[in-house]
Amino acid sequence: MQEKIRKDILRLADSRIVVVGSVDENGYPNGKGMFNAKHDGIRTFWLSTNTSSIRVEQFQQNPKAFLYFVDMLRISGVMFTGQMKVHLDDETRLMLWKKGDEQYYPLGPTDPDYAVLEFTAEQGNYYHGLNKEIFSVDEV
Amino acid sequence: MQEKIRKDILRLADSRIVVVGSVDENGYPNGKGMFNAKHDGIRTFWLSTNTSSIRVEQFQQNPKAFLYFVDMLRISGVMFTGQMKVHLDDETRLMLWKKGDEQYYPLGPTDPDYAVLEFTAEQGNYYHGLNKEIFSVDEV
Repeated sequence: MQEKIRKDILRLADSRIVVVGSVDENGYPNGKGMFNAKHDGIRTFWLSTNTSSIRVEQFQQNPKAFLYFVDMLRISGVMFTGQMKVHLDDETRLMLWKKGDEQYYPLGPTDPDYAVLEFTAEQGNYYHGLNKEIFSVDEV
Repeated sequence: MQEKIRKDILRLADSRIVVVGSVDENGYPNGKGMFNAKHDGIRTFWLSTNTSSIRVEQFQQNPKAFLYFVDMLRISGVMFTGQMKVHLDDETRLMLWKKGDEQYYPLGPTDPDYAVLEFTAEQGNYYHGLNKEIFSVDEV
């Protein structure tokens, strides 16, 4: 992989917002914007969402997921496919908790409505203008 | 449905870029940004893409799709789930063709690599801040 592409993928993976994809109970793909709370390179991403949200139930039934990061101005994007795990234990929730999260989860890190999603990437698709490249996560 | 929400949904559906979701041959959701070439309210949307693209093959195998429009500044978004149809006939391709498309399909509207996607919405999910609303397409 070219160094320029590698750098652009890492830059995109740092975006604050990411479109998260799931498959619903009728087999339809679903997508929603979420906050990219923390990530370890491009292998593992942590997101937070409402325990009561449709997405949490979907991932508990079917962990197949995508994360899609896009920079509309540079017409550049990267989509990772992989597995999503739902965490409801206090240890994980305290680990990800940060100041300001009270506005979404008023009861704090142990709020029953606060859920953490952990995404593990398996494969990537990088797009830039009309070019595309499929890559394994180990390459980056 | 509130008039304010209805207007915001119609505004979002006018965005130039939309994230298009599909399900791949291994059952993973996939997402990619595409141009929203033309639409008839929020019922039917037309997109163009490369015949050779992975997406075209996926929709030929499995027409289940989503379109996700998002306005990051206003934290507002709408996702439609529905069916995607692939058109490769000249009539449809000429109907959608417009000046400037040659940069993507150098051979013109009958370029074998020029494909038209037609999305028919069935259901919608509207998000604004922390609020969400699921609606039927007939309501808007």
